[in-house]
Amino acid sequence: MSKGITGKETDYSAWYNELILKSELADYAPVKGCMVIRPHGYAIWEKMRDGLDKMFKDTGHENAYFPMLIPESFIKKEAEHVKGFSPELAVVTHAGGKELEEPLVLRPTSETIIWSMYKNWIHSHRDLPLLINQWANVIRWEMRTRLFLRTTEFLWQEGHTAHATAEEAEEETLRMLNVYKTFAEEQMAMPVLIGKKTEAQKFAGAVATYAIEAMMGDKKALQSGTSHFLGQNFAKAFDVKFQNEENKEEYVYATSWGVSTRLIGALVMTHGDDKGLVLPPRLSPFEVIIIPIWKTDEEETKVRSFLEKIENSLKSADVTFKIDDRTYVTPGWKFNEWELKGIPLRIEVGPRDVKENQLVMVRRDQSEKAVKHLEGVGKESRTVLDAIQKDMFEKAKTFREDNTKKINSYDDFKEFYESDGGFAESYWCGSPVCEQEVQDETKATIRVIPFEQPEERGSCIKCGKESETFVVFAKSY
Amino acid sequence: MSKGITGKETDYSAWYNELILKSELADYAPVKGCMVIRPHGYAIWEKMRDGLDKMFKDTGHENAYFPMLIPESFIKKEAEHVKGFSPELAVVTHAGGKELEEPLVLRPTSETIIWSMYKNWIHSHRDLPLLINQWANVIRWEMRTRLFLRTTEFLWQEGHTAHATAEEAEEETLRMLNVYKTFAEEQMAMPVLIGKKTEAQKFAGAVATYAIEAMMGDKKALQSGTSHFLGQNFAKAFDVKFQNEENKEEYVYATSWGVSTRLIGALVMTHGDDKGLVLPPRLSPFEVIIIPIWKTDEEETKVRSFLEKIENSLKSADVTFKIDDRTYVTPGWKFNEWELKGIPLRIEVGPRDVKENQLVMVRRDQSEKAVKHLEGVGKESRTVLDAIQKDMFEKAKTFREDNTKKINSYDDFKEFYESDGGFAESYWCGSPVCEQEVQDETKATIRVIPFEQPEERGSCIKCGKESETFVVFAKSY
Repeated sequence: MSKGITGKETDYSAWYNELILKSELADYAPVKGCMVIRPHGYAIWEKMRDGLDKMFKDTGHENAYFPMLIPESFIKKEAEHVKGFSPELAVVTHAGGKELEEPLVLRPTSETIIWSMYKNWIHSHRDLPLLINQWANVIRWEMRTRLFLRTTEFLWQEGHTAHATAEEAEEETLRMLNVYKTFAEEQMAMPVLIGKKTEAQKFAGAVATYAIEAMMGDKKALQSGTSHFLGQNFAKAFDVKFQNEENKEEYVYATSWGVSTRLIGALVMTHGDDKGLVLPPRLSPFEVIIIPIWKTDEEETKVRSFLEKIENSLKSADVTFKIDDRTYVTPGWKFNEWELKGIPLRIEVGPRDVKENQLVMVRRDQSEKAVKHLEGVGKESRTVLDAIQKDMFEKAKTFREDNTKKINSYDDFKEFYESDGGFAESYWCGSPVCEQEVQDETKATIRVIPFEQPEERGSCIKCGKESETFVVFAKSY
Repeated sequence: MSKGITGKETDYSAWYNELILKSELADYAPVKGCMVIRPHGYAIWEKMRDGLDKMFKDTGHENAYFPMLIPESFIKKEAEHVKGFSPELAVVTHAGGKELEEPLVLRPTSETIIWSMYKNWIHSHRDLPLLINQWANVIRWEMRTRLFLRTTEFLWQEGHTAHATAEEAEEETLRMLNVYKTFAEEQMAMPVLIGKKTEAQKFAGAVATYAIEAMMGDKKALQSGTSHFLGQNFAKAFDVKFQNEENKEEYVYATSWGVSTRLIGALVMTHGDDKGLVLPPRLSPFEVIIIPIWKTDEEETKVRSFLEKIENSLKSADVTFKIDDRTYVTPGWKFNEWELKGIPLRIEVGPRDVKENQLVMVRRDQSEKAVKHLEGVGKESRTVLDAIQKDMFEKAKTFREDNTKKINSYDDFKEFYESDGGFAESYWCGSPVCEQEVQDETKATIRVIPFEQPEERGSCIKCGKESETFVVFAKSY
């Protein structure tokens, strides 16, 4: 069975799909737009979930679970929210053999059902802040779907917090945005820009939306996580008030924030190469794949007893590993398979290595072979894995920097997006008309308005008006 | 705010519901039959999930995720399966603003969608066994619902494995049944009977169903987990064949097995008392609640610095804890609250304790106060927590034994279920007619046919015919 995949340069989109299917991250499901997350993909998601969950708990959040079925009338309570989500809703009209009196919507996001409950739970300032997160599946009926990036059903987490003041809620919004940035950079080895979204791009029902944005291997941007300041919009829609410290009734302030299985698509496109997936050690289902090589029974006995020493050393250094001792495929076939699956470090051991008390290490992110002594192989692996994690981040960051360009003239801007493209740093007058025209003419959109704004002013990339807002444009997924 | 709940003896069902609502395990959702799992309840579910997940992985299983939306035609492919589940289905008929060509069913269980995928993944005996588990939400449109025990939506895990031979699949079925038994007894401190279900009680689509059954505080049985040998039923329905070692095509053999958030209801009813929940240490969100007591600022300073020593000692013994230092409720109020929430061990520290270098410990499963020296409080807590875990199991086991009775005459049997009831150990001729008549007349059903059958024969509790099948009857949830 050939596991070859189309090259990135040949057809990026084919490369992406083939990589996912052949590395067994996921498969197409029988229902249009749905996918199956296979064990290799799900193990990565578990690592992501555990990493994020710890960060959420460390910042005081608790998990809960709210129903997936939402009365249709709830969705309609917040005007912007229903406008944003109604084209994407899936609706249960029949259940238990009967037509329902009120249709039920499958949650596209849970603000409405959660704020209908918060009404019962929040009475006094002593009930605040309420810091709840949920891990769940959501359904959005999308027209064009892509494995992991945009699927009808996806897995995600959604934080929903309630606060006594706008300031506290805004602080929380930015705190969680920074949690996402830290997770993306330290665990996923994926550098991200952070900033505010424009009015046109914000969440339906938010006062302000913030995002982390990463550059993929084809120089397009991927919005990888969002954090919303919701003001009192949902509190008003669901009549959630609290008694403040002065014994006055006030509407509660809200935030929501989420990341999804889309992050797996981000991993693929940030680090993948023509041989397949390249996983950062911190999110790989296991860190080291060991491939023993032998021909005779006698060699097998020797290699196996040598393997035990390697195993002990790896265990003592808390390095996670698997041994692939299948007999019906060749070592070369195994090398390809585990490269395709992106395991960060490979150890090969044959009879000659046993004799020399050594082994061969091959980093997935490079291709040179290194011969290492048996002694201290656990510690050495940890050192190499740490280097891989760091180098992967640096490589992705350099790639982004190499493909980011300050652009002041609209002619240059158009040319940039007619050729290779990337991130354009430009000024924008703040008008949604300019924003829309740029998108119509170049397909590039404003990804973020960075928090750090330069002191000098510039002129709007589209209309040329003097402008103080420095933004980052890109084509995006 | 009063947190008092109705007594168990007064009204068991009211006690159960009030306990769940007031201890903030869960709340009713706006959609009929649905519930919200609140942070305290969800933290218990996370402990259960992590405990079970480790046991699944240790027995070679991997997690994956399959879509929640299933084409209606899939459900109809296995004759028994559709008969069992169609009355409970919720159906999506509209999505994205349009009527769907084929209605989609919300999974009530995932055999059909999973076996439609296994068809693509299984070709040769080398692809077997395939050992996959899924953590997911499922929807069953139930007529009468109860918090945790029977809800329209619930969370569960469902294992779906594929094997080359019937023997291997049967072995797997029993292996996972025993995993459930171990989990129930060692983590939940809940003794369970294991055995086979009768034909009338088995899973729709199974060749044989096995279950763990526990006795609740009202002497009714709760089916707490099931493991099914599915034979080739689903392989035939979805045409899943493999090339065996002799290069012949054969249908694959299957198992499935699951436990759900119902286990939280089981915990409540196995251990709860009139003061509220009693949690086994291994599943409690944290093990120790510390309640500091002071009146003056000077006392506060002293107590707080003493607390630090306690914290360090607990940490060094890996004991998990929380400090409740709220100032707007009294210590007595806190005692009640944490008793209601079932935290296994309470530590109280006041200014006098600081002076004496001591603290007060109160076990949730008993009520005596014990004064302990500060030194070694971590280790001492661990010892006490281990004792609580063990004593809770023993207490539940004794309760079950005290309420289990060998019954040979149908008159005694009827009287047993007209009065207090419990588990009746009796003989049964094997006829579904007798089984149904017993149920109609007494509401008791056959919970399990135990694996260990006595050597002697008896006579069927209903018809009196000589019988070799020894069974356990009970009223059940």
